[in-house]
This record gives sequence, C-alpha cells and structure tokens, in this order.
Amino acid sequence: MTVYPAGMFPATFIGGAGGIWTIDRMTAVAGEPLPVADRLEIREGIVTVSGGVWRLAGVAGHTRYAERAEKTQLDALSPPLGRPEATRAALIPIRKSAGWWTLPQDERRAIFEERSRHIADSLPFAPRIARRLYHARDLGQPFDFLTWFEFAPEDERAFDDLVAMLRAREEWSYVDREVDLRLSR
Amino acid sequence: MTVYPAGMFPATFIGGAGGIWTIDRMTAVAGEPLPVADRLEIREGIVTVSGGVWRLAGVAGHTRYAERAEKTQLDALSPPLGRPEATRAALIPIRKSAGWWTLPQDERRAIFEERSRHIADSLPFAPRIARRLYHARDLGQPFDFLTWFEFAPEDERAFDDLVAMLRAREEWSYVDREVDLRLSR
Repeated sequence: MTVYPAGMFPATFIGGAGGIWTIDRMTAVAGEPLPVADRLEIREGIVTVSGGVWRLAGVAGHTRYAERAEKTQLDALSPPLGRPEATRAALIPIRKSAGWWTLPQDERRAIFEERSRHIADSLPFAPRIARRLYHARDLGQPFDFLTWFEFAPEDERAFDDLVAMLRAREEWSYVDREVDLRLSR
Repeated sequence: MTVYPAGMFPATFIGGAGGIWTIDRMTAVAGEPLPVADRLEIREGIVTVSGGVWRLAGVAGHTRYAERAEKTQLDALSPPLGRPEATRAALIPIRKSAGWWTLPQDERRAIFEERSRHIADSLPFAPRIARRLYHARDLGQPFDFLTWFEFAPEDERAFDDLVAMLRAREEWSYVDREVDLRLSR
C-alpha cells in the first residue's frame, strides 16, 4: 500500500536504545517533550511497528513554499547528508497551530518568506548545514514537520544562531509544539 | 500513531461488494484502470486492512494553491457533502508526473491557476457540485489525489463539462494516471 516514487524519502526516526546516533540532549521548546531516549535510529520507510521509546515518521518530497530562484540558490549551496565530518546532528519536530493551517497558500507564503525571510536568511547557513525536511501532517503524526540537520562540531554555534533567528520570526508564532534534539555519532 | 486534528478528514475508499454507493462505470482516462468492483464503501480514517477489491486512502486538509480571495469565493459557493438530492457521485483518483513534482511552488501555481484557471473556471460549477479533495501522495498511495464529487442526476451533464474542461488544460498534461468512477445511491 505504501510505495514511494523516486524523489520522495520516507523515513522513521526511532528513539530508544539502538542506532548510530547518541541523543545528547532534548529541549522542549514549545509544548510537550518526547519521552527520554538514549539513541536514535533512522529507518528508511514508514515503520509502524518497532521497539524504542518513541517513533516519528515523515516523508521528504516536493517543495511547499520555495520558488524557482530560491530553490536554485538553495540546491546550489546545500551539502549532501552523510558528510564524514558532520558528526553532529539535530532533529527538530515541529507542529503548527490550527490557525496556520486554515490560512490560504498566499498568506502562509507571505508569513513564511516575505515577512519571516525563512529561506533568504537561512541561505548563508546552508553550506555548513545539511538538511532534510520531512512532512508528517498528512500521515496523522503528532508533529507536522521533522527537520533533520547534520553539521560538523565547529558549526554547532552557527546552527544555534540559525534556529534562534527562525524562532524569533513571525512564522514561529504559529508553532505550538517544538522539540529540539541534539545528537552525535 | 495516526491521530488527525480538527480540519483534517482522513478517508479510505474501498471498492468491493459493500457500501451504499453502486459503481456504475469506470473509465481509465490515463494509465492503468482499477480492478473492477461493484460497490464503494467510504470509511473514515486510514484503513490499512479491509476486504474489497481495491482500497485507496487520502486526507483532506489545508489548501495547497488557493489564495484568500479564491478560497472565500469557493467556500461561499460550495454546498456540503451529503445533500439528499445528490444521488450521483464521482471518485476521480489522479497521479501527476515526476515532472510536476520537481517544479517549485510558484511554477506549479502558475500552471494550475494563471494558465489553467483551475479555480476560476470551476467556480461557476461549484454551487451544483459538492467536492472534497483528498491528498494521498505523502501516504505512499498509488495516486496523488482522490477527488470525491456529489451531485444531483440532472447535474451530471454539468459535471461532465467541468471535467472535460479541466482535462483540456495545460495542468492536465502533467496527469499520468487518472481513473473516473461514476456512482449512484
């Protein structure tokens, strides 16, 4: 029943005792935290049964807001996942409010980019921070998005600056649950 | 694991021997048809096990392309599902090509509305035809969208005109699989 075409990347993040990533800390930025787990395993596909303390699934796929010029810039600047030097990672699950989702596309786009400059102001960080955005809302998950980031230890400060910047913008007033997990391998 | 908030409508369409809708005919407009079934059952939620000959799931939720003015007009004109006189229905599962999904948001929007006038030219039909669009792509389904329509028998000709109009537009050049099921109760 679940067969994803090329260009889509379904994944399940499993917090528990297994996996190559150690969960170094968890911060509940907004709303409920996740249960405490020691390690993170990332499995390809939507896994509905597993061990572990928690399990979050999402699907990376087409862009929802980025326009042609933005996508071209982002694609050119973004490193791939799995760089050997990227031994630090972050998993940031986010849920946006009902108020966000009832807005039409043009108003969500205006908040996201014209007013919060989500893409434009993230671009300077892009070369150092590999990133994949998983969509989870249509899957009936407890979060709407799971974003996975990978970076070298010396770029953790820059990553902190990036998330602090985004959290201070208008877009983030629609975020009603956010957990920030930091990891190392 | 699957808990949908208010404003989202997950549903599973099951083609088989049960359900209040009789499948009167099926047309494979593009690509493979579905297996032949006599009746259609619509279940709330994402059902992963069932009897039946085929099963298609999707989730209705937030708008992907409609802007404020369009959404306001559509909402004002659109009748609810379940009108007693709406004893005819159509279920039209559609898949769009990889070429569509690699386009950025602004180019998909331009094809969808500025060039194909999907919303603007559908508006005159809206009062007679109740409609709910289910998104299925993130669910790993064989179709990207399932659109469910309900109308009175005397409006079937108008419905035929509506789908013929949309199929003749540029947007539809990106449709690589489409099945048109017509039903009655």
